Amino acid sequence: MMTKPDVLLQIRWDADNKVSAFADRLAGREVLNYEGEAGVDLSAVRYAVVWKPDPGLLASLPSLEVIFSLGAGVDHLLSDPQLPTDKPIVRFVDPDLTGRMVEWIALQVLLHLRQQRVYDAQQRKRLWQENMQPAAKDLRVGIMGFGELGQACAKALLALGFPVNGWARSPKQFEAVTTYAGDGELDAFLNHTDVLVSLLPYTQDTHGILNSALFEKLSRDNPFGAPFLINAGRGGSQVESDIVAALKDGTLAGVSLDVFETEPLDPYSPLWGFDNAIITPHIAALSEPNALANYVGDQIERYEAGRSLENLVDMKRGY
Amino acid sequence: MMTKPDVLLQIRWDADNKVSAFADRLAGREVLNYEGEAGVDLSAVRYAVVWKPDPGLLASLPSLEVIFSLGAGVDHLLSDPQLPTDKPIVRFVDPDLTGRMVEWIALQVLLHLRQQRVYDAQQRKRLWQENMQPAAKDLRVGIMGFGELGQACAKALLALGFPVNGWARSPKQFEAVTTYAGDGELDAFLNHTDVLVSLLPYTQDTHGILNSALFEKLSRDNPFGAPFLINAGRGGSQVESDIVAALKDGTLAGVSLDVFETEPLDPYSPLWGFDNAIITPHIAALSEPNALANYVGDQIERYEAGRSLENLVDMKRGY
Ligand SMILES: NC(=O)c1ccc[n+]([C@@H]2O[C@H](COP(=O)([O-])OP(=O)(O)OC[C@H]3O[C@@H](n4cnc5c(N)ncnc54)[C@H](OP(=O)(O)O)[C@@H]3O)[C@@H](O)[C@H]2O)c1
Ligand SMILES: NC(=O)c1ccc[n+]([C@@H]2O[C@H](COP(=O)([O-])OP(=O)(O)OC[C@H]3O[C@@H](n4cnc5c(N)ncnc54)[C@H](OP(=O)(O)O)[C@@H]3O)[C@@H](O)[C@H]2O)c1
Repeated sequence: MMTKPDVLLQIRWDADNKVSAFADRLAGREVLNYEGEAGVDLSAVRYAVVWKPDPGLLASLPSLEVIFSLGAGVDHLLSDPQLPTDKPIVRFVDPDLTGRMVEWIALQVLLHLRQQRVYDAQQRKRLWQENMQPAAKDLRVGIMGFGELGQACAKALLALGFPVNGWARSPKQFEAVTTYAGDGELDAFLNHTDVLVSLLPYTQDTHGILNSALFEKLSRDNPFGAPFLINAGRGGSQVESDIVAALKDGTLAGVSLDVFETEPLDPYSPLWGFDNAIITPHIAALSEPNALANYVGDQIERYEAGRSLENLVDMKRGY
Repeated sequence: MMTKPDVLLQIRWDADNKVSAFADRLAGREVLNYEGEAGVDLSAVRYAVVWKPDPGLLASLPSLEVIFSLGAGVDHLLSDPQLPTDKPIVRFVDPDLTGRMVEWIALQVLLHLRQQRVYDAQQRKRLWQENMQPAAKDLRVGIMGFGELGQACAKALLALGFPVNGWARSPKQFEAVTTYAGDGELDAFLNHTDVLVSLLPYTQDTHGILNSALFEKLSRDNPFGAPFLINAGRGGSQVESDIVAALKDGTLAGVSLDVFETEPLDPYSPLWGFDNAIITPHIAALSEPNALANYVGDQIERYEAGRSLENLVDMKRGY
């Protein structure tokens, strides 16, 4: 006979692997993967592990103590108008996820620097031809959103020889990175950036921030004569019609996008069709099932031992 | 009236930029870019800066003291049967060139890890689809030729999260790299390698070393079920018909080749046609004109001040 669950999972993708990883890590607890079935007694649920929970679900749990996000971003969670505002929300911060983001960002910056898409096109034509070849030192990478992921990417990009700038809400000190803080220093940051990498969370303040007016402020003082844009934060931060226009008129030399205003990206979006636009289906940094389960397990153990939860979301900031 | 040149350049490509970089750096000396013109008095040439010199040219210079290679590799130079064997040969070792090789190798390893060519094909079909995604820790990179370039690449790959092995003639200690030395440890090295990166010089010993028998010894114990090959050393080290066969039957999961048995690569080579073969036209690490000129200038100054030349080629080893 099943006892009442105390951990509720609501998993939207790759559910089987995740459920079994949680069952293993939380062996001894009653874990339920809840898909909205009727007649389940949720009165004992203390911990909820969710990505986009059913609206109102979290508010309906009388014993809820902690909410865990299945991803690093919490915009999907916060968009629930009935979200309980008095419960701690823990987001996912993990070396495995961070490492994957570093891989994807380093790959995309190098793809543009080394003109790989140009060489790919030459390969299809069986054409042996050397192109202009700037070095990493010739492209300044500016990382918008200089938090967990941004700083890890900065470290790897510095090791590859790129000069790196960072922009965040609050001032930062990080290795050889020149940092800029807040809206007042945004223009100076953009003006020193040849490759703009966005790792911003999606909030009211970052909605639509990657738009024509911002692209105009990026430096054109690099060997390509135009800047690049890479976004692996959230699609809601970009204005896709502005990106299309900027690719058409050369305001942007190239882009790499892993996130989109609407996902999956519409097959009719013109973004798919540009040789110098690299499109990936929100795969920059997946949350690996065992890493997720271990993280949540560790946090629950900390909490029950009376220690503080880590990586708490600040509802006021929105991330 | 022109005095007799004491520095002879013989430059095969991008000559204008190089000649002017040398003229600037060696201002005060008589520098000649020699293209085989008749009637030039070469009797005072002390320094020759060459890539593939005209056969016999170096032997004909009565005052020659030092030979400089325009590249990191010296196989083209050593293939001159009349090469004077009593003159020091200095090869090009420079942070600029090394940095470019690190960029290219990191890019290629990441391209395979992140299945970028698969995502490229999906993009052309406007297909939104997530593929299997191993992390850097799941692919062990084995660097064959663990010298200047190999060690710099290892450093960057470690920073990106890859486990790294190295193989050289002589034993090495380098950061977290597991190193193997000599023919006796080659099989063990291959057996622990999922991504084989060759940065070997071309010598009698490395001729054709990248062949079917070697590919069979690579590990298949990785999430792709087959190993990858990346060669930016010299094309003479690879057997292209074996690579084609290995791509066809799945012995290799993918390759990146910057160098070829014959360059430019024949437009009819089947290598151009594989989706999982990335072909670039010997551009992994160009020698930048100013870096070259500064390097040669510095070495000449050291030499004339009675200090030892650096990065001397060992004629017996062949590199
Ligand atoms: N594509 C993918 O696969 C994928 C995977 C994981 C995460 N993500 C995205 O990546 C985002 C970042 O993750 P993270 O772990 O690095 O988050 P984080 O540690 O919270 O870092 C967020 C950074 O953005 C800055 N920021 C936020 N709002 C800002 C504003 N209005 N103006 C200036 N700076 C602002 C923050 O500044 P302060 O430092 O001053 O607070 C912080 O530096 C997530 O929110 C998620 O959307 C995407
Ligand atoms: N594609 C391009 O654009 C490009 C650009 C520059 C250079 N390259 C190529 O890269 C090569 C390497 O350059 P580098 O500066 O790194 O040279 P390096 O410092 O001399 O390193 C060569 C490495 O290969 C090892 N090695 C040589 N013969 C071997 C053998 N028979 N068995 C095992 N190991 C052997 C050496 O072992 P030890 O350490 O024991 O001596 C050394 O570790 C050059 O020769 C050139 O062909 C290509």
